[in-house]
Amino acid sequence: MNYPSQLIEEAVNELSKFPGVGKKSAVRMVLHLLKQKEQDVTKLGEAVIKLRTQIQYCKRCGNVSDFDICNICASPKRDQQTICVVEDLRDVMAIENTNQYNGTYHVLGGLISPVNGIGPDTLNIDSLIERIKTENTKEIIMAISATMEGDTTVFYLSKKLKDMPINISSISRGIAIGGELEYADEITLGRSIALRVPYNI
Amino acid sequence: MNYPSQLIEEAVNELSKFPGVGKKSAVRMVLHLLKQKEQDVTKLGEAVIKLRTQIQYCKRCGNVSDFDICNICASPKRDQQTICVVEDLRDVMAIENTNQYNGTYHVLGGLISPVNGIGPDTLNIDSLIERIKTENTKEIIMAISATMEGDTTVFYLSKKLKDMPINISSISRGIAIGGELEYADEITLGRSIALRVPYNI
Repeated sequence: MNYPSQLIEEAVNELSKFPGVGKKSAVRMVLHLLKQKEQDVTKLGEAVIKLRTQIQYCKRCGNVSDFDICNICASPKRDQQTICVVEDLRDVMAIENTNQYNGTYHVLGGLISPVNGIGPDTLNIDSLIERIKTENTKEIIMAISATMEGDTTVFYLSKKLKDMPINISSISRGIAIGGELEYADEITLGRSIALRVPYNI
Repeated sequence: MNYPSQLIEEAVNELSKFPGVGKKSAVRMVLHLLKQKEQDVTKLGEAVIKLRTQIQYCKRCGNVSDFDICNICASPKRDQQTICVVEDLRDVMAIENTNQYNGTYHVLGGLISPVNGIGPDTLNIDSLIERIKTENTKEIIMAISATMEGDTTVFYLSKKLKDMPINISSISRGIAIGGELEYADEITLGRSIALRVPYNI
Protein backbone atom coordinates (compact mmCIF):
# COMPACT_ATOMS: atom_id res chain seq x y z
CA MET A 1 0.00 0.00 0.00
CA ASN A 2 1.17 3.55 -0.69
CA TYR A 3 0.81 6.00 2.17
CA PRO A 4 0.53 9.74 1.57
CA SER A 5 2.76 10.43 4.57
CA GLN A 6 5.71 8.83 6.33
CA LEU A 7 4.08 9.50 9.70
CA ILE A 8 0.99 7.56 8.68
CA GLU A 9 3.04 4.67 7.36
CA GLU A 10 4.97 4.41 10.64
CA ALA A 11 1.83 4.59 12.78
CA VAL A 12 0.06 1.99 10.60
CA ASN A 13 3.05 -0.35 10.78
CA GLU A 14 3.21 -0.07 14.56
CA LEU A 15 -0.53 -0.38 15.15
CA SER A 16 -0.88 -3.38 12.85
CA LYS A 17 1.44 -5.34 15.16
CA PHE A 18 -1.44 -5.71 17.62
CA PRO A 19 -3.01 -9.17 17.42
CA GLY A 20 -6.04 -9.17 15.13
CA VAL A 21 -5.28 -5.73 13.68
CA GLY A 22 -4.50 -5.70 9.95
CA LYS A 23 -3.33 -2.82 7.77
CA LYS A 24 -6.88 -1.70 6.98
CA SER A 25 -7.92 -1.62 10.63
CA ALA A 26 -4.70 0.22 11.45
CA VAL A 27 -5.54 2.89 8.85
CA ARG A 28 -8.96 3.25 10.46
CA MET A 29 -7.27 3.67 13.86
CA VAL A 30 -4.93 6.29 12.40
CA LEU A 31 -7.87 8.23 10.96
CA HIS A 32 -9.54 8.09 14.36
CA LEU A 33 -6.39 9.43 16.01
CA LEU A 34 -6.10 12.28 13.51
CA LYS A 35 -9.60 13.43 14.51
CA GLN A 36 -8.81 13.48 18.24
CA LYS A 37 -7.35 16.36 20.23
CA GLU A 38 -3.56 16.49 20.39
CA GLN A 39 -3.55 16.13 24.18
CA ASP A 40 -5.77 13.02 24.05
CA VAL A 41 -3.48 11.27 21.56
CA THR A 42 -0.44 12.23 23.62
CA LYS A 43 -2.18 10.73 26.67
CA LEU A 44 -2.68 7.46 24.78
CA GLY A 45 0.92 7.34 23.59
CA GLU A 46 2.26 8.06 27.06
CA ALA A 47 -0.06 5.53 28.72
CA VAL A 48 1.26 2.85 26.36
CA ILE A 49 4.91 3.73 27.00
CA LYS A 50 4.41 4.03 30.79
CA LEU A 51 2.58 0.71 30.83
CA ARG A 52 5.58 -1.13 29.47
CA THR A 53 8.38 0.80 31.15
CA GLN A 54 6.93 1.18 34.66
CA ILE A 55 5.02 -2.08 35.09
CA GLN A 56 5.95 -4.27 38.05
CA TYR A 57 5.16 -7.87 38.85
CA CYS A 58 4.25 -9.20 42.29
CA LYS A 59 7.35 -10.93 43.67
CA ARG A 60 5.20 -13.67 45.16
CA CYS A 61 2.50 -14.60 42.62
CA GLY A 62 3.79 -13.06 39.39
CA ASN A 63 0.64 -11.02 38.82
CA VAL A 64 0.91 -7.49 37.51
CA SER A 65 1.04 -4.99 40.37
CA ASP A 66 1.86 -1.41 41.25
CA PHE A 67 3.81 -2.61 44.29
CA ASP A 68 6.38 -5.28 45.18
CA ILE A 69 3.62 -7.49 46.54
CA CYS A 70 0.19 -7.29 44.90
CA ASN A 71 -3.02 -6.35 46.73
CA ILE A 72 -4.29 -9.91 46.75
CA CYS A 73 -1.10 -11.39 48.21
CA ALA A 74 -0.91 -8.59 50.77
CA SER A 75 -4.52 -8.90 51.93
CA PRO A 76 -5.01 -10.47 55.41
CA LYS A 77 -8.61 -11.31 54.41
CA ARG A 78 -7.55 -13.78 51.71
CA ASP A 79 -6.83 -17.44 52.37
CA GLN A 80 -3.07 -17.52 51.84
CA GLN A 81 -2.86 -21.32 51.83
CA THR A 82 -4.91 -21.81 48.66
CA ILE A 83 -3.29 -21.01 45.33
CA CYS A 84 -5.20 -20.77 42.06
CA VAL A 85 -2.82 -21.38 39.14
CA VAL A 86 -3.69 -19.37 36.02
CA GLU A 87 -2.17 -18.53 32.65
CA ASP A 88 -2.18 -14.73 32.75
CA LEU A 89 -3.70 -11.65 34.31
CA ARG A 90 -6.87 -11.87 32.24
CA ASP A 91 -7.75 -15.05 34.14
CA VAL A 92 -7.05 -13.34 37.48
CA MET A 93 -9.36 -10.49 36.47
CA ALA A 94 -12.08 -12.90 35.30
CA ILE A 95 -12.00 -14.95 38.52
CA GLU A 96 -11.84 -11.82 40.71
CA ASN A 97 -14.93 -10.50 38.96
CA THR A 98 -16.93 -13.57 40.06
CA ASN A 99 -16.38 -12.64 43.76
CA GLN A 100 -16.39 -16.39 44.45
CA TYR A 101 -12.73 -16.98 45.23
CA ASN A 102 -10.94 -15.93 48.38
CA GLY A 103 -7.48 -17.47 47.99
CA THR A 104 -4.36 -16.25 46.22
CA TYR A 105 -3.14 -16.74 42.65
CA HIS A 106 -0.05 -17.86 40.86
CA VAL A 107 0.35 -16.44 37.35
CA LEU A 108 2.37 -18.72 35.05
CA GLY A 109 2.76 -16.07 32.35
CA GLY A 110 1.86 -18.50 29.56
CA LEU A 111 1.36 -22.18 28.84
CA ILE A 112 3.83 -24.85 27.77
CA SER A 113 3.87 -24.83 23.96
CA PRO A 114 6.81 -26.59 22.27
CA VAL A 115 5.55 -25.41 18.86
CA ASN A 116 5.99 -21.78 19.91
CA GLY A 117 9.24 -22.49 21.77
CA ILE A 118 7.70 -22.01 25.22
CA GLY A 119 9.11 -24.58 27.63
CA PRO A 120 8.49 -24.96 31.38
CA ASP A 121 11.65 -22.94 32.13
CA THR A 122 10.22 -19.75 30.65
CA LEU A 123 7.13 -19.92 32.88
CA ASN A 124 6.80 -19.06 36.59
CA ILE A 125 6.80 -22.72 37.63
CA ASP A 126 9.89 -22.81 39.85
CA SER A 127 8.53 -19.96 41.94
CA LEU A 128 5.27 -21.92 42.39
CA ILE A 129 7.16 -24.99 43.69
CA GLU A 130 9.15 -22.71 46.00
CA ARG A 131 5.96 -21.11 47.30
CA ILE A 132 4.33 -24.45 48.06
CA LYS A 133 7.42 -25.61 49.95
CA THR A 134 7.76 -22.50 52.10
CA GLU A 135 4.19 -21.28 52.56
CA ASN A 136 2.51 -24.38 53.99
CA THR A 137 0.09 -24.41 51.05
CA LYS A 138 -2.95 -26.68 51.44
CA GLU A 139 -4.61 -26.60 48.03
CA ILE A 140 -3.72 -25.88 44.41
CA ILE A 141 -6.60 -25.12 42.04
CA MET A 142 -5.75 -25.45 38.36
CA ALA A 143 -7.75 -22.84 36.42
CA ILE A 144 -6.14 -23.49 33.04
CA SER A 145 -7.86 -23.61 29.63
CA ALA A 146 -8.70 -27.10 28.35
CA THR A 147 -6.56 -26.70 25.21
CA MET A 148 -3.62 -28.81 24.13
CA GLU A 149 -1.18 -26.31 25.69
CA GLY A 150 -3.30 -26.05 28.84
CA ASP A 151 -3.56 -29.83 29.28
CA THR A 152 0.19 -30.20 28.72
CA THR A 153 0.89 -27.57 31.37
CA VAL A 154 -1.51 -29.14 33.89
CA PHE A 155 0.03 -32.57 33.26
CA TYR A 156 3.55 -31.22 33.74
CA LEU A 157 2.57 -29.39 36.93
CA SER A 158 0.73 -32.36 38.39
CA LYS A 159 3.79 -34.58 37.88
CA LYS A 160 5.99 -31.96 39.57
CA LEU A 161 3.59 -31.66 42.51
CA LYS A 162 2.58 -35.27 43.00
CA ASP A 163 4.83 -36.01 45.99
CA MET A 164 3.88 -32.88 47.89
CA PRO A 165 1.37 -32.95 50.76
CA ILE A 166 -1.24 -30.78 49.02
CA ASN A 167 -4.65 -31.22 47.41
CA ILE A 168 -4.73 -30.54 43.69
CA SER A 169 -8.05 -29.70 42.07
CA SER A 170 -9.21 -28.33 38.76
CA ILE A 171 -12.12 -26.01 37.95
CA SER A 172 -15.22 -27.97 36.93
CA ARG A 173 -16.00 -28.48 33.25
CA GLY A 174 -19.47 -28.86 31.84
CA ILE A 175 -22.36 -27.14 30.17
CA ALA A 176 -22.39 -23.41 30.88
CA ILE A 177 -25.11 -22.16 33.25
CA GLY A 178 -27.87 -20.98 30.94
CA GLY A 179 -26.25 -22.83 28.03
CA GLU A 180 -28.47 -24.95 25.80
CA LEU A 181 -27.63 -28.63 25.46
CA GLU A 182 -28.17 -28.78 21.70
CA TYR A 183 -25.47 -26.16 21.09
CA ALA A 184 -22.85 -27.76 23.33
CA ASP A 185 -20.03 -29.65 21.64
CA GLU A 186 -20.04 -33.46 21.98
CA ILE A 187 -16.92 -33.67 24.16
CA THR A 188 -18.22 -31.18 26.71
CA LEU A 189 -21.68 -32.78 26.74
CA GLY A 190 -20.23 -36.31 27.02
CA ARG A 191 -17.92 -35.27 29.85
CA SER A 192 -20.73 -33.44 31.63
CA ILE A 193 -22.65 -36.75 31.83
CA ALA A 194 -19.60 -38.73 32.96
CA LEU A 195 -18.82 -36.08 35.58
CA ARG A 196 -22.42 -35.69 36.76
CA VAL A 197 -22.99 -34.43 40.32
CA PRO A 198 -25.66 -35.47 42.86
CA TYR A 199 -28.82 -33.38 42.68
CA ASN A 200 -29.55 -31.65 46.00
CA ILE A 201 -33.05 -30.38 46.70
CA MET B 1 -13.85 -4.34 36.00
CA ASN B 2 -11.10 -4.35 38.63
CA TYR B 3 -7.58 -3.93 37.33
CA PRO B 4 -4.58 -5.20 39.28
CA SER B 5 -2.59 -2.09 38.35
CA GLN B 6 -3.26 1.59 37.75
CA LEU B 7 -1.01 1.50 34.67
CA ILE B 8 -3.10 -1.26 33.12
CA GLU B 9 -6.33 0.55 33.88
CA GLU B 10 -5.06 3.72 32.18
CA ALA B 11 -3.80 1.87 29.11
CA VAL B 12 -7.04 -0.11 28.80
CA ASN B 13 -9.11 3.08 29.09
CA GLU B 14 -7.07 4.81 26.40
CA LEU B 15 -6.94 1.84 23.99
CA SER B 16 -10.66 1.15 24.30
CA LYS B 17 -11.35 4.60 22.81
CA PHE B 18 -10.42 3.20 19.38
CA PRO B 19 -13.48 2.45 17.27
CA GLY B 20 -14.49 -1.20 17.57
CA VAL B 21 -12.18 -1.87 20.53
CA GLY B 22 -13.97 -2.79 23.77
CA LYS B 23 -12.52 -3.29 27.25
CA LYS B 24 -11.80 -6.99 26.64
CA SER B 25 -9.93 -6.35 23.38
CA ALA B 26 -8.04 -3.53 25.10
CA VAL B 27 -6.92 -5.94 27.84
CA ARG B 28 -5.71 -8.32 25.13
CA MET B 29 -3.78 -5.46 23.52
CA VAL B 30 -2.25 -4.56 26.90
CA LEU B 31 -1.14 -8.17 27.44
CA HIS B 32 0.42 -8.13 23.98
CA LEU B 33 2.28 -4.91 24.81
CA LEU B 34 3.58 -6.34 28.09
CA LYS B 35 5.16 -9.21 26.17
CA GLN B 36 6.97 -6.90 23.71
CA LYS B 37 10.38 -5.36 24.15
CA GLU B 38 10.47 -1.99 25.90
CA GLN B 39 11.97 -0.27 22.85
CA ASP B 40 9.26 -1.62 20.54
CA VAL B 41 6.46 -0.34 22.76
CA THR B 42 8.20 3.02 23.06
CA LYS B 43 8.37 3.13 19.27
CA LEU B 44 4.63 2.53 19.04
CA GLY B 45 3.84 5.21 21.62
CA GLU B 46 6.09 7.74 19.94
CA ALA B 47 4.74 6.95 16.45
CA VAL B 48 1.21 7.64 17.71
CA ILE B 49 2.18 10.93 19.36
CA LYS B 50 4.26 12.08 16.36
CA LEU B 51 1.43 11.18 14.00
CA ARG B 52 -0.93 13.60 15.68
CA THR B 53 1.48 16.39 16.57
CA GLN B 54 3.53 16.56 13.36
CA ILE B 55 0.95 15.71 10.71
CA GLN B 56 0.41 18.25 7.95
CA TYR B 57 -2.35 18.65 5.41
CA CYS B 58 -1.83 19.59 1.77
CA LYS B 59 -2.78 23.27 1.42
CA ARG B 60 -4.40 22.55 -1.93
CA CYS B 61 -6.33 19.29 -1.69
CA GLY B 62 -6.59 18.71 2.08
CA ASN B 63 -4.97 15.29 1.90
CA VAL B 64 -2.50 14.24 4.56
CA SER B 65 1.04 15.10 3.53
CA ASP B 66 4.58 15.47 4.83
CA PHE B 67 4.92 18.74 2.92
CA ASP B 68 2.92 21.92 2.31
CA ILE B 69 1.74 20.53 -1.01
CA CYS B 70 1.24 16.76 -1.32
CA ASN B 71 3.06 14.56 -3.83
CA ILE B 72 -0.02 14.17 -6.02
CA CYS B 73 -0.71 17.90 -6.25
CA ALA B 74 2.96 18.61 -6.91
CA SER B 75 3.37 16.00 -9.65
CA PRO B 76 3.68 17.37 -13.21
CA LYS B 77 2.57 13.95 -14.52
CA ARG B 78 -0.92 14.25 -13.04
CA ASP B 79 -3.84 15.91 -14.79
CA GLN B 80 -4.27 19.00 -12.64
CA GLN B 81 -7.62 19.94 -14.17
CA THR B 82 -9.49 16.89 -12.95
CA ILE B 83 -10.45 16.70 -9.29
CA CYS B 84 -11.75 13.56 -7.62
CA VAL B 85 -13.76 14.50 -4.52
CA VAL B 86 -13.48 11.97 -1.69
CA GLU B 87 -14.42 11.67 1.98
CA ASP B 88 -11.06 10.92 3.57
CA LEU B 89 -7.53 9.66 2.99
CA ARG B 90 -8.61 6.02 2.95
CA ASP B 91 -10.47 6.71 -0.28
CA VAL B 92 -7.40 8.42 -1.77
CA MET B 93 -5.30 5.37 -0.88
CA ALA B 94 -7.90 2.97 -2.32
CA ILE B 95 -8.14 4.85 -5.63
CA GLU B 96 -4.35 5.30 -5.86
CA ASN B 97 -3.94 1.55 -5.43
CA THR B 98 -6.03 0.92 -8.56
CA ASN B 99 -3.44 2.78 -10.73
CA GLN B 100 -6.41 3.86 -12.88
CA TYR B 101 -6.67 7.53 -11.97
CA ASN B 102 -4.31 10.25 -13.06
CA GLY B 103 -5.94 13.43 -11.78
CA THR B 104 -5.82 15.18 -8.40
CA TYR B 105 -7.99 14.79 -5.31
CA HIS B 106 -9.94 16.96 -2.95
CA VAL B 107 -10.42 15.50 0.51
CA LEU B 108 -13.57 16.75 2.23
CA GLY B 109 -12.58 15.40 5.63
CA GLY B 110 -16.00 13.88 6.28
CA LEU B 111 -19.57 13.89 4.98
CA ILE B 112 -22.52 16.13 5.81
CA SER B 113 -24.35 14.52 8.72
CA PRO B 114 -26.77 16.73 10.65
CA VAL B 115 -27.36 13.91 13.18
CA ASN B 116 -23.70 14.01 14.15
CA GLY B 117 -23.52 17.80 13.99
CA ILE B 118 -21.40 17.85 10.82
CA GLY B 119 -22.52 20.65 8.55
CA PRO B 120 -21.03 21.82 5.22
CA ASP B 121 -19.01 24.50 7.07
CA THR B 122 -16.88 21.93 8.90
CA LEU B 123 -15.84 20.24 5.63
CA ASN B 124 -13.29 21.38 3.04
CA ILE B 125 -16.00 22.58 0.64
CA ASP B 126 -15.12 26.27 0.40
CA SER B 127 -11.56 25.39 -0.61
CA LEU B 128 -12.95 23.14 -3.37
CA ILE B 129 -15.07 25.99 -4.79
CA GLU B 130 -12.05 28.28 -4.59
CA ARG B 131 -9.91 25.71 -6.43
CA ILE B 132 -12.42 25.29 -9.23
CA LYS B 133 -12.62 29.07 -9.69
CA THR B 134 -8.88 29.66 -9.81
CA GLU B 135 -7.47 26.47 -11.34
CA ASN B 136 -9.44 26.24 -14.59
CA THR B 137 -10.81 22.85 -13.52
CA LYS B 138 -12.50 20.80 -16.28
CA GLU B 139 -14.02 17.87 -14.43
CA ILE B 140 -15.15 16.95 -10.94
CA ILE B 141 -15.53 13.22 -10.16
CA MET B 142 -17.61 12.43 -7.09
CA ALA B 143 -16.20 9.30 -5.45
CA ILE B 144 -18.44 9.39 -2.40
CA SER B 145 -20.12 6.44 -0.66
CA ALA B 146 -23.77 5.86 -1.59
CA THR B 147 -25.01 6.28 1.97
CA MET B 148 -27.48 8.82 3.30
CA GLU B 149 -24.63 11.13 4.35
CA GLY B 150 -22.82 10.59 1.05
CA ASP B 151 -25.90 11.32 -1.05
CA THR B 152 -26.63 14.45 1.00
CA THR B 153 -23.07 15.68 0.46
CA VAL B 154 -23.15 14.98 -3.29
CA PHE B 155 -26.52 16.76 -3.57
CA TYR B 156 -25.21 19.80 -1.66
CA LEU B 157 -22.05 19.93 -3.77
CA SER B 158 -23.87 19.55 -7.07
CA LYS B 159 -26.16 22.48 -6.16
CA LYS B 160 -23.13 24.61 -5.26
CA LEU B 161 -21.37 23.71 -8.52
CA LYS B 162 -24.29 23.81 -10.95
CA ASP B 163 -23.55 27.23 -12.45
CA MET B 164 -19.87 26.55 -12.99
CA PRO B 165 -18.47 25.61 -16.41
CA ILE B 166 -17.32 22.11 -15.40
CA ASN B 167 -18.34 18.52 -16.00
CA ILE B 168 -19.55 16.70 -12.91
CA SER B 169 -19.49 12.91 -12.90
CA SER B 170 -19.82 10.17 -10.33
CA ILE B 171 -18.10 6.79 -10.09
CA SER B 172 -20.22 4.03 -11.64
CA ARG B 173 -22.40 1.86 -9.45
CA GLY B 174 -23.32 -1.71 -10.20
CA ILE B 175 -22.52 -5.34 -9.56
CA ALA B 176 -18.89 -5.83 -8.51
CA ILE B 177 -16.60 -7.44 -11.07
CA GLY B 178 -16.60 -11.11 -10.12
CA GLY B 179 -19.67 -10.60 -7.93
CA GLU B 180 -22.53 -13.04 -8.24
CA LEU B 181 -25.94 -11.68 -9.18
CA GLU B 182 -27.87 -13.76 -6.68
CA TYR B 183 -25.96 -12.24 -3.74
CA ALA B 184 -26.35 -8.61 -4.88
CA ASP B 185 -28.91 -6.48 -3.06
CA GLU B 186 -32.07 -5.54 -4.95
CA ILE B 187 -31.30 -1.83 -5.20
CA THR B 188 -27.84 -2.36 -6.72
CA LEU B 189 -29.13 -5.03 -9.11
CA GLY B 190 -32.12 -2.92 -10.15
CA ARG B 191 -29.93 0.12 -10.73
CA SER B 192 -27.38 -1.94 -12.64
CA ILE B 193 -30.12 -2.84 -15.16
CA ALA B 194 -31.41 0.73 -15.41
CA LEU B 195 -27.84 2.01 -15.88
CA ARG B 196 -26.84 -0.72 -18.36
CA VAL B 197 -24.03 0.09 -20.79
CA PRO B 198 -23.61 -0.90 -24.47
CA TYR B 199 -21.77 -4.16 -24.94
CA ASN B 200 -18.60 -3.72 -27.05
CA ILE B 201 -17.03 -6.75 -28.65
